[in-house]
Amino acid sequence: MHRTRFYTLSASCPDRVGIVARVSGFIAGHGGWILETALHAEPARADGAAGGGEAVGRYFMRIEIRADSLPFHLAEFRERFRPLADELEMEWKITDSAVKKRVVLLVSKQEHCLYDLLARWQSKELDIEIPCVISNHDSLRGFVEWHGIPFHHVPVGADNKAAAYAEVQRIFEEVRGDTMVLARYMQVLSPALCAAYPGRILNIHHSFLPSFVGAKPYHQAWAKGVKLIGATCHYVTAELDQGPIIEQDVIRIDHSDAVEDMVRYGKDIEKTVLARGLRYHLEDRVLVHGNKTIVFR
Amino acid sequence: MHRTRFYTLSASCPDRVGIVARVSGFIAGHGGWILETALHAEPARADGAAGGGEAVGRYFMRIEIRADSLPFHLAEFRERFRPLADELEMEWKITDSAVKKRVVLLVSKQEHCLYDLLARWQSKELDIEIPCVISNHDSLRGFVEWHGIPFHHVPVGADNKAAAYAEVQRIFEEVRGDTMVLARYMQVLSPALCAAYPGRILNIHHSFLPSFVGAKPYHQAWAKGVKLIGATCHYVTAELDQGPIIEQDVIRIDHSDAVEDMVRYGKDIEKTVLARGLRYHLEDRVLVHGNKTIVFR
Amino acid sequence: MHRTRFYTLSASCPDRVGIVARVSGFIAGHGGWILETALHAEPARADGAAGGGEAVGRYFMRIEIRADSLPFHLAEFRERFRPLADELEMEWKITDSAVKKRVVLLVSKQEHCLYDLLARWQSKELDIEIPCVISNHDSLRGFVEWHGIPFHHVPVGADNKAAAYAEVQRIFEEVRGDTMVLARYMQVLSPALCAAYPGRILNIHHSFLPSFVGAKPYHQAWAKGVKLIGATCHYVTAELDQGPIIEQDVIRIDHSDAVEDMVRYGKDIEKTVLARGLRYHLEDRVLVHGNKTIVFR
Amino acid sequence: MHRTRFYTLSASCPDRVGIVARVSGFIAGHGGWILETALHAEPARADGAAGGGEAVGRYFMRIEIRADSLPFHLAEFRERFRPLADELEMEWKITDSAVKKRVVLLVSKQEHCLYDLLARWQSKELDIEIPCVISNHDSLRGFVEWHGIPFHHVPVGADNKAAAYAEVQRIFEEVRGDTMVLARYMQVLSPALCAAYPGRILNIHHSFLPSFVGAKPYHQAWAKGVKLIGATCHYVTAELDQGPIIEQDVIRIDHSDAVEDMVRYGKDIEKTVLARGLRYHLEDRVLVHGNKTIVFR
Repeated sequence: MHRTRFYTLSASCPDRVGIVARVSGFIAGHGGWILETALHAEPARADGAAGGGEAVGRYFMRIEIRADSLPFHLAEFRERFRPLADELEMEWKITDSAVKKRVVLLVSKQEHCLYDLLARWQSKELDIEIPCVISNHDSLRGFVEWHGIPFHHVPVGADNKAAAYAEVQRIFEEVRGDTMVLARYMQVLSPALCAAYPGRILNIHHSFLPSFVGAKPYHQAWAKGVKLIGATCHYVTAELDQGPIIEQDVIRIDHSDAVEDMVRYGKDIEKTVLARGLRYHLEDRVLVHGNKTIVFR
Repeated sequence: MHRTRFYTLSASCPDRVGIVARVSGFIAGHGGWILETALHAEPARADGAAGGGEAVGRYFMRIEIRADSLPFHLAEFRERFRPLADELEMEWKITDSAVKKRVVLLVSKQEHCLYDLLARWQSKELDIEIPCVISNHDSLRGFVEWHGIPFHHVPVGADNKAAAYAEVQRIFEEVRGDTMVLARYMQVLSPALCAAYPGRILNIHHSFLPSFVGAKPYHQAWAKGVKLIGATCHYVTAELDQGPIIEQDVIRIDHSDAVEDMVRYGKDIEKTVLARGLRYHLEDRVLVHGNKTIVFR
Repeated sequence: MHRTRFYTLSASCPDRVGIVARVSGFIAGHGGWILETALHAEPARADGAAGGGEAVGRYFMRIEIRADSLPFHLAEFRERFRPLADELEMEWKITDSAVKKRVVLLVSKQEHCLYDLLARWQSKELDIEIPCVISNHDSLRGFVEWHGIPFHHVPVGADNKAAAYAEVQRIFEEVRGDTMVLARYMQVLSPALCAAYPGRILNIHHSFLPSFVGAKPYHQAWAKGVKLIGATCHYVTAELDQGPIIEQDVIRIDHSDAVEDMVRYGKDIEKTVLARGLRYHLEDRVLVHGNKTIVFR
Repeated sequence: MHRTRFYTLSASCPDRVGIVARVSGFIAGHGGWILETALHAEPARADGAAGGGEAVGRYFMRIEIRADSLPFHLAEFRERFRPLADELEMEWKITDSAVKKRVVLLVSKQEHCLYDLLARWQSKELDIEIPCVISNHDSLRGFVEWHGIPFHHVPVGADNKAAAYAEVQRIFEEVRGDTMVLARYMQVLSPALCAAYPGRILNIHHSFLPSFVGAKPYHQAWAKGVKLIGATCHYVTAELDQGPIIEQDVIRIDHSDAVEDMVRYGKDIEKTVLARGLRYHLEDRVLVHGNKTIVFR
């Protein structure tokens, strides 16, 4: 993170000669001072590797530019950059570090991820707005409200799921949320809600995916006798625990650890992995490519 | 590892009051000096966790005793200990650090695990006999023979599998092998061979099991977009890549790593994980419990 | 952790034949059901390794016994066990899982360790009493008091150190504290306070000791160009950052990480390492041996 | 690694607007296809952090270009690029993936790093020439020569150091070595030899520097009671174990590990860390900046 205001351009396009030259030439042509650049060429694969083969490679980039080095603001940047982006067939966006992202947290009863995220928000490590917290239980209301953050209790039962998720979506829209974070929210979102915000809903799953999808992953891990347990931060898609993976980590266990110990160890990696994944997302470091991600750490 | 000769007693039995007192009392009663003790009670589980529930807990132990502190040798130890072991319904064995284990290596064309194991054997880090190496290719013969170790080329084709594995078994028996190590042996052993040596054949699988069973796990990992790749050392059973896990580890990768990079990173954890798992096995630190292991590191 | 009430016996004594037999025999003789046992023999070292050589080895043990399996309570256990302990020249203690430890937290302005510990206390992962929090600043009062925990502001200036630490000690005594935790408390305790509670004050230092003792360790690490940064939980002694190490961990950084990034990464390991070290301490898993620790994880 | 031939341009220069645009514009102007780009701006630091403060920032870059996409070879590239490089006040070089680096290994009696590096060379994971191995002992001659690599025994005694290192330098020059690797070479090179090849001699030190400089670092680590041990790959300078750090890693130990166990664990990280550091160096991923390194992994 830089202390001066900056813009972040993130983009991808079909690979070809001269992309970097054209884009960096555009920026330099206006006197733009580049703070950080990350580039990645995903090669065309002729070898038929499962799930990734494409006829043409794809180029990904993320560039941070000092705001005060450019002679215009974002609206004009967008207008001037568009012809080049169109020519390169880019998907792109540019964001402003001075505009805080609005992150809505969804929680259930477990508090470890919530405490962790609010500590990071309180200390400004996460420089975001949290317009509200939504929960299917009421138990964490006091803690959230003490921080001056509105709390919405939206119960989810077997017979009101559609209505409940419609209410979640209504609140998210009302507070103009950018990102939704399932911080150990123990409910499966409706397909409609997943589809409404592709690449904008993050979940923390308490296993090293693709192992142990679904419910009670620590019980599954215990029964299998694995020697490491993990956690996975991923984008939510309609298919349960199958969305693009943003970040993962593991911790060593052994035969003496019961399921309850694994749950306890797991919490420590859950909160760390979620916080790292969320940071990458908020800083526009994550570019989705099919069912995978490019993460410019 | 201790420099003085010692015996290693490893055992398990139904849990009850007084096991440690009885066993350590027996040892102390003969003046036995204990160098290292590891104990584990696997509780009876009433909560129906998959794969582990039992009505009575089970107790596991591993005790190292200085050989020169006892007034008799192993044969007499076994005779005197048997009544107690029977009373406690123990499965048990006792081994002598002065008797080197005889380890047969099976390899294919890849050399990284072979070089690694022979370096450890050469430096006496692995204090074992390697009576021979068996391979389905002839390419590593020179390297093995330079070390003074016999090399057997046993080709495995689509139409001679039964005969080939019978030959592997014949050689293993002939050299009086204790343990068989599949050091990136790229063939699936026959069920008969697996069944002949339960808990005596170790494999290194190039993924973090249970993810990515079977062929080309790095390709599978690449296609899934995981952020860590792993390796697993496990006992071989008739069911492919499903035997009890002894040791695992992982390494971080990112979007810039192609399958070939993952293969390269993977080799480093494969050889480390195999060497660790093999050491635990050779030092009688691994006790199998159903489809899981107790590993007294 | 077990759900049933249990006693934890932790002890050390000069090594000799029969220690385990005598102690486990005593327990079994009263019908005691052992839940967990950990043993360690620290050998006498004749090779003159710095800092550890002793003429006779020392034996360490930690045993958990189900409270309801014994026919008497702790007072009587202590009385009956004493003759054996005396004979073996033991240093020992036995604690009761039903008696919560009383942990006093000392903090300054940084909140990450405080949030983390209170989350663990709130969820009963840490099953302790927190009779109060003491700080040299007043900024975290509201957060602490919201949890129903008394907060004491004890300013520490250049000219009132002796008085300030006397006040800290007075409060600690008044609330009958068992353990004092410096949860990123940015002051150096007085030698008198350190000496008053040997093995009872835990600190989290933000480097991988023995590297980067003292102030601004992340700046030191940045200047040195290390590729991993760490954190260390240790007992506080009069010599700054030199007390027995309980737990350590590290995280990977690279050239793109500025000091501020290292501070951010570091917080994640600080809180995890402190929480792990504190748990080991509270569960009587840490036995001090000279300037080192035995940690029965 | 790419399978097609490519050139690697690595460079650094004072930071200013337009560096990337100028350099990538030059490459694109000749039709150059960029395979991989890594960039880093080391900011000017006004805050007086020890060891790094500079009045102007410095820009680092590493660019891989497909050889067959350019209309000329390296000699002409160098000639055409020089004016731009001069204008930007660059330190720079460009290398050709088709020209194998010539790496001379120095070893003593321990074989683990030697076996590891030769396995990587044998499998072409390290695509280098090893024109010879030099040792102060004769014991590894047979193993090296079996691989078809010349072996030079250059004894180093208390009274012939100057002559011995002169001989090492003579051999290195004679075989036209690019890089010298101290693969657990248990001698301290002469200042003259260190000064002759700045940034071209790599050492693996068996501790997590800056902790435990000099002899017997595992004994030092044991005496201190650290909970992790490490290894460090660094460039050799005249000051012992103080050269720029390229790569580090650690492994967890505990109280039950004696010095000999730490030595054994340590070997595994020594060889992995050395192999990683060497790979980064050989692929021109390491740019030295004062006493630190930029490593474009």
